[in-house]
Amino acid sequence: QVIRQVIFFPDKEIACKDFFDAIEGCSRVPCDFSHTQTGFRHLLSFLKSAKKSIDIAVYCISCFEIADVVLQRHKVGVRVRVITDLSMEAAFGSQNHRFMKDGIRVQTNKPPFLMHHKFVIIDDEVVCFGSFNWTSQAVTGNNESVVVTNDPWVVEPFRGEFKKLWFETKPD
Amino acid sequence: QVIRQVIFFPDKEIACKDFFDAIEGCSRVPCDFSHTQTGFRHLLSFLKSAKKSIDIAVYCISCFEIADVVLQRHKVGVRVRVITDLSMEAAFGSQNHRFMKDGIRVQTNKPPFLMHHKFVIIDDEVVCFGSFNWTSQAVTGNNESVVVTNDPWVVEPFRGEFKKLWFETKPD
Ligand SMILES: [Zn+2]
Ligand SMILES: [Zn+2]
Repeated sequence: QVIRQVIFFPDKEIACKDFFDAIEGCSRVPCDFSHTQTGFRHLLSFLKSAKKSIDIAVYCISCFEIADVVLQRHKVGVRVRVITDLSMEAAFGSQNHRFMKDGIRVQTNKPPFLMHHKFVIIDDEVVCFGSFNWTSQAVTGNNESVVVTNDPWVVEPFRGEFKKLWFETKPD
Repeated sequence: QVIRQVIFFPDKEIACKDFFDAIEGCSRVPCDFSHTQTGFRHLLSFLKSAKKSIDIAVYCISCFEIADVVLQRHKVGVRVRVITDLSMEAAFGSQNHRFMKDGIRVQTNKPPFLMHHKFVIIDDEVVCFGSFNWTSQAVTGNNESVVVTNDPWVVEPFRGEFKKLWFETKPD
């Protein structure tokens, strides 16, 4: 089944965790959060769908909720590989230490080059990429675009690029 | 004719201006620059092909050479619209003033939102987008990805997004 989606940010609202994730639902009346799908939840749904592998090459990863989903997939046996920029490893809120604590391999780009990519490959079949860093700021504070597709003309080059980057960023 | 290309940066070399652009060619032996096509020249070729319109929504535009191409297209009658982030208007090397001096309409995003997009629409038909800001640093110093396509499933949403942003960023 063909996946071809363009998601724009900012989201106007933040999704209600209770409404979407809690068995008992949301009991707030009124609720300040969104009970309809957001771009962010949409993006997360692709990560949640990973069955075999998640390959991440994203400049800056500081969004706790995205990291949660990645960690959860890793816990159920999905192979996760992460490349971020070295300068963002120690950035405020960087999730790299959480990944490493759980045994996920994290590699960083060596200066002077900047690893400015923002893409993830899911199960070697679906690519999400665009202007979007994995920060909370990006979700509701930025104008951003993300394309999600399994079109091979997009997926194959990105797979090659990840392979190359993973090799280049291997620790000495 | 279908356009579907993925361009990765950094370029290993900088293209030789003389070789590609001068009538008499390049006379340096050896030449320090590239006599074969680079990703950057490839990207520029799409801008150079514009016949009717160039709609730009890019966080930061400081690359002199890209601005040159845009200004040249504007000079021959192509309608150019530019949106950048307000914070980047006064950034080192920002090309906004060059655009405005030549009569190109430049609009900036209003805080607190950050205009973090990196896309351009050429002749309402081709979109180039990805992680790439229009800076010189990005060309040879960063790992970046740019997708160029005229697939309508990509082009139509980006056209809608530009239209919306252009309206939202209109000066009061
Ligand atoms: Zn709720
Ligand atoms: Zn030369």
